[in-house]
Amino acid sequence: MSPSEPQSPPPRRRGRPPRAEAGDGPGARERIAAAARAEFAERGYDGASIRAIAKGAGVDPALVHHYFGPKERVFAAAVELDFAPALAAPGVLLEGGPQDVGERLTRFVLGVWEDPATREQLRAIVRSAVANEAAATVFRELVTERLMLPVAGRLGVPDARLRAELAAAQLVGVAMLRHVIKVEPLASVDFEDVVARAAAAVQAHLTG
Amino acid sequence: MSPSEPQSPPPRRRGRPPRAEAGDGPGARERIAAAARAEFAERGYDGASIRAIAKGAGVDPALVHHYFGPKERVFAAAVELDFAPALAAPGVLLEGGPQDVGERLTRFVLGVWEDPATREQLRAIVRSAVANEAAATVFRELVTERLMLPVAGRLGVPDARLRAELAAAQLVGVAMLRHVIKVEPLASVDFEDVVARAAAAVQAHLTG
Repeated sequence: MSPSEPQSPPPRRRGRPPRAEAGDGPGARERIAAAARAEFAERGYDGASIRAIAKGAGVDPALVHHYFGPKERVFAAAVELDFAPALAAPGVLLEGGPQDVGERLTRFVLGVWEDPATREQLRAIVRSAVANEAAATVFRELVTERLMLPVAGRLGVPDARLRAELAAAQLVGVAMLRHVIKVEPLASVDFEDVVARAAAAVQAHLTG
Repeated sequence: MSPSEPQSPPPRRRGRPPRAEAGDGPGARERIAAAARAEFAERGYDGASIRAIAKGAGVDPALVHHYFGPKERVFAAAVELDFAPALAAPGVLLEGGPQDVGERLTRFVLGVWEDPATREQLRAIVRSAVANEAAATVFRELVTERLMLPVAGRLGVPDARLRAELAAAQLVGVAMLRHVIKVEPLASVDFEDVVARAAAAVQAHLTG
């Protein structure tokens, strides 16, 4: 703010804590997001509490609201931790040309699920998204708006949005049957085999 | 049992009620299944109670166990009501030849979801299946063992089971994004458009 502007207070932001709020400081935002991730994974969207997240991060509950806003945005921040690399640079998924985008997108999305460290978080996201409307909105924004659509949008095809969603449907379905419902042999079959078969469908949706 | 065998009592079946159990009689089984369907749809797998199902059917709770066994079998019976036509005759889905099986399977599965009368039940099944292991097993048996695999098995392709599951994944994903997560435009786009696009992927998985 320049010195010539009126000295009115900044717009009031609900829940904004005083500067000396307990637990604030460098890294507080990251600690809160990590604590939120653990809490949502353990209790699901409806069961998770802002108080428990604050406790896990060693901060005052007001600070959680200060950094992230209402519960669904805390959830969004937690979920983003798992998708951060791809969300930061969807263009990377297009390097190598549009003819391989299905394979790269499939490998990335299903690869996140293969990692035991993130799998539980992702299971929690899916459970939350099918049980709760606010969590479903977060899931929707993340998977389609920020991941699939930016990729599809660069392909220059008609109906990019619908194509992206049908491709996402294939990946969501594979993740569900392989990792949540655990259908055999899909649950145990080699990762490369799954990627090859799912990628063909994803590619056909995107550019077929 | 032949008269020469020892006159031991028949194997005891836990929960078998006396013949004059309250509410038993013609149609009791169907009334229980219908009440179970409503109860699971309203409360999900974990929240549903055998007592409430019995009350809804106007029978003694012991009769529910008598006809269906433990809770997961009651759930299976409730779920089957929605899929009964296809489960009764998977061969019907192959009439017209293997080149159209993707289209017929897609139209049937997604068509069940289009009907507002069954949609809520199906949403409840998905919610239950992602939240509860026993419900997931029922979902798995129904969708893959009894619907997709019998169809794929008649196609004479290698890896019929894995192909059936990847096709099922496409349909499960579309149902989730269209009807549970409600991603736009997929949630609102014309049914025939969805069928055409999803069917191409299902057909490729099954016979490609």
